[in-house]
Formats: sequence, structure tokens, C-alpha cells
Amino acid sequence: MKNVLIIGCGLLGSSLLRRISKKRLAKKIFVYEKSKKNITKIKRLKLPGVLVKKLYDALPQSELIILCTPMSEYKKIILKINKYLTPKHIITDVGSSKLKSVKIIKKYLKKKIFWTSSHPIAGSEVSGPEHGKQDLFENKWCVLIKDNKTNLKHLKFLSSFWKKIGSKVVVMKPEKHDKIFSITSHLPHLVAYNLVKSAQDFEKIQNFDLIKYSAGGLRDFSRIASSNEIMWRDIFFDNKINVSKAINLFIKNLNAFKKDINSKNNKSILKKLIQTKKVRSKIIKLKQDIDKPDFGRN
Amino acid sequence: MKNVLIIGCGLLGSSLLRRISKKRLAKKIFVYEKSKKNITKIKRLKLPGVLVKKLYDALPQSELIILCTPMSEYKKIILKINKYLTPKHIITDVGSSKLKSVKIIKKYLKKKIFWTSSHPIAGSEVSGPEHGKQDLFENKWCVLIKDNKTNLKHLKFLSSFWKKIGSKVVVMKPEKHDKIFSITSHLPHLVAYNLVKSAQDFEKIQNFDLIKYSAGGLRDFSRIASSNEIMWRDIFFDNKINVSKAINLFIKNLNAFKKDINSKNNKSILKKLIQTKKVRSKIIKLKQDIDKPDFGRN
Repeated sequence: MKNVLIIGCGLLGSSLLRRISKKRLAKKIFVYEKSKKNITKIKRLKLPGVLVKKLYDALPQSELIILCTPMSEYKKIILKINKYLTPKHIITDVGSSKLKSVKIIKKYLKKKIFWTSSHPIAGSEVSGPEHGKQDLFENKWCVLIKDNKTNLKHLKFLSSFWKKIGSKVVVMKPEKHDKIFSITSHLPHLVAYNLVKSAQDFEKIQNFDLIKYSAGGLRDFSRIASSNEIMWRDIFFDNKINVSKAINLFIKNLNAFKKDINSKNNKSILKKLIQTKKVRSKIIKLKQDIDKPDFGRN
Repeated sequence: MKNVLIIGCGLLGSSLLRRISKKRLAKKIFVYEKSKKNITKIKRLKLPGVLVKKLYDALPQSELIILCTPMSEYKKIILKINKYLTPKHIITDVGSSKLKSVKIIKKYLKKKIFWTSSHPIAGSEVSGPEHGKQDLFENKWCVLIKDNKTNLKHLKFLSSFWKKIGSKVVVMKPEKHDKIFSITSHLPHLVAYNLVKSAQDFEKIQNFDLIKYSAGGLRDFSRIASSNEIMWRDIFFDNKINVSKAINLFIKNLNAFKKDINSKNNKSILKKLIQTKKVRSKIIKLKQDIDKPDFGRN
């Protein structure tokens, strides 16, 4: 690969930057970052790559363009870069929901330009270039989005690119992607935010100081509920139909749980509590988590 | 302290056993365990203490009796030990909900015998004597329950005992205890079980293999949802009024969240996502969790 342009240099962008530089995957790495705060951090961290002030300083010379900004920025960026784009540009992004962003891309991207969307499953509760690391994507899944407009050459290029980044690649339609992640990621985040919100409400109503007793479970949720708010607002809004359906399923099941508890339905509740255990074993077996008690944190 | 009797030698019981032995807090440690599987493990692990076959082999000689069994066993055990008990016996337990067990104790315990309940906040998703460790309680909170019947001498003794075990001690009424832990522990567990259950339902309905994409959030919940089912059934049943109220508050907030998402209420959702972040900082500051991203597990 000749040159690459990373637009947005937060957790994911700066991790890609570190990795591409370390593995020498590109001749030149251009970095475009809007936030002054992040630019200061990037300089202080002495990250590799060339910081560009204007997108057109790097666009014509770049083979690969990777958007690592919040999804709510896509439209603005597309309108900015459209005139510099050619069909040879390989363009991707790392957004966490796809149906809506694919629509926006289709609507605003110049005709005959290709955009092949990626979703590396590698986020965490921290954000910003100071938290990036070159091995962030190691052995993590990266979903590549394919629909009837996908340029297969670009798809192949990106598949090979993400493998060099360390990821395991899987190809999916945007509809399937958004359904799966509404359950494995978006609903868990929403539920974590909602649990912490409920604890805050309870604290106010009861005037109890309860956060200090959070080690019994709440603390785990608080980690997820401290994730970047702009990123998560965008995800919830963009995938709202699937997220709404997931909430409905969740509430239906929670009401059934409540009924079991109130009627002391021993058989039904034990069945549930035993069944859910199996998922943990499967997750450990699939190496999606470590098997130490309490994530080995103590 | 002369002798101590630990009834039930799982995660908590065996951790107490290890700690009492290591710190030489008792002359003799008696251990009573019902499960043959656990007895085999205790012998294989060469845990300290004297395994007794009958409770009366140890009861008359023990100054302190600690129940570390599921709460649904309390009644049976009380009826078994009643005739050997004297007012000098200091009796405690480590159950996670208190109102109901205090009621059962009051109802079945012989007159003029004192029972001072404890709740060390030190559980995790694993159970059984093989997972116990002597420092399990180190720097963790231990709640001691006080009501108008509490023997203050026993309360003082237990406060000093738990401090020697490594815990920080706080004294609370059973009502307040059960309210606080319905939010910081019982609801988080219920929500985690319910989230994993919903993912399983979704997997069946859609025929998708989604557990392998659990690294985006679901895997965290699966840890909590793999906790011991007997223990958690007992907690949900025993604290059902507070747990029901907590579920209602949670569903109310979740519906408000859904409304914000569906109406794209930017201001309201950002306020929530920013507010909840503060709880994480507070938890880290209070040393209730480690501050490494992803619990430092990667």
C-alpha cells in the first residue's frame, strides 16, 4: 500500500496509526484530526504519521482512506472530500452501526465512488489518542459490510488489510450486522447506562450513599456506562429500530423474571439461572473473554 | 478466640477458613460441609481445620459459629443446632439479603440465643472451596446488621473479627441493607441474567450465531450471569419486595431511554450518558474497582 489517510485520531484511529506504522503497512500515513485537544495529545505522544491541516493536502495521494470519527460526522466529511475522490480510492470507516450510515453514504457520496464499511470489535470505555495501542485489534473480529453495490476488489483489499492489522475478518450484510450488534453490544450498553441511571435516581430518592457498596455488581456496569457519549448517542440513534426491538424483548423477559420472583416460581427461575451460565462457558471457549474470576482484576 | 465452627465450606466458607488459619485467629477451626463433592475437594486441597461429620461434634466447644450456606438452608440448620446453643454462642452468617433471613432466624432460633448477621461484599461468579482464598475479604466492605434485639457485645466481637479478616466494617439496619443491595447488587445480577437470556432468545428466533461477537459488551454481563444459581434464587426470593421495586424503576427509566432514542432527543440522551460517567469516576476514587480499561483483562 502506498499512502493511507486516517480521518479522526481517537482510540481507534490512533491504534490503526500505531499499527500501520509499526508493521510498515504504508509508505506514508496522513492524519487529519479536527479537535485541538487531540492534536496537542498526538504531538505530545509523538505519534508517527504526518498531521495534515486540510483534507486535500493528503487525499489525492492516498490509496486508502479510513474514517475513525463519530458517525454523526460522516455527512459533513463526505461533502468536504467528495470533489477530491476518484473511483480508485478505497474508503472505509469503523462505525458501530451500519444501516443508517450506509444510507447516508449512498445519499451524499459522489457517484461512482466506492465505500466499503468496516466494524472492528475493539472499543472500550476509554477514548482519545492517549489510550490507543498497536495491538488493540489483535485477534478481535472485524466485520466487513457487503451489499449489492460493494466493489469486490476493495472488499478483498480491506479483508487483507484488517488481517495485517491483527483482526479476524467476517463479511456480513448491513441488516444482519445491525441486528446482531443490537443484542451483543448496543443493548448491553443501553442497559448499563440505564442501570447506573437507576442507581443515581435511587440514591437521590432514598438519600443513601450507595456507590461505595458497588462491588457487588454495579461496578461492572459502571465501566460500560462510562463509554464515550457522542459515539453511543450516534449508535442508539442510527440503529434505533433494532435497539427498540431489543429493549422490548428485554422488558418482556424482565417482567417474566419479576413474575417468577413474586410468585416464587422455583422451577422457572432455576431453569433461567442455569441456562444463562452456558453462555459464559461458550464465550470463554471462543476466547471472547478471559476465564479468571472477576476478570482477574483483584 | 477459642474455637470457631464454619458451616458450609464453599467460596466464602473456605476463604474464611484459610484466613482464620493463616492469621491464627482461633485455636481450632471446625468445618461442617454437607456436600460430598465439596468434602472431596476440601480433602484434596488439604485445607486446614477439622472436618466434622455431625454438628454437635463441634458446637459445644465453639465460641463462634459462621453460617456460609445458601440462605434457603438456614431454617433446617437452625432446627438442627437449636438444642446445642447457649446464649454465649456468637452466631453469624454471610447471606446477601437480610430482612427475610432475620425473620426466619427470629421465628426458629431458640429463645435467648443471639444471632448477629454479617454480609461481606466479596462474592464473584465462581463458587466452591477450590476458588476460596485467604485475602478474599481484604479491603472489602462487611455489613453488620443491627436491630433492637442485637447483642452489642456480639456486635463488637464480630466487628473486630471481620477487621482481622481484612474487611472494612459498617453497621446497618436490615431494612437499609436490603434496599441498598437491591440496587447495587441484586438488580445488576438480575439484569445480567436477563440480558443473557434475551440474547439466547434472539439467537433462537433469528438463528444467528451471535455469542462469538460478544466482546462488544455482552461478555461482561455473561460473567455476572454465571454466578451460583441457588444463591441467587434465594436472594431474589428473599428480597423480592425491594427487587420488584428496583425492576419497576429500571423499566420506567428504560422506557424513557427508548422514547429519547425513538424521538432522537439529543439533549436528553446526552445528559443521561454524561451523568452516568460520573459514577464510574466515583467508584474508581472509592477504590471499588481498578481503573484500567476493560478491567485490565487484555
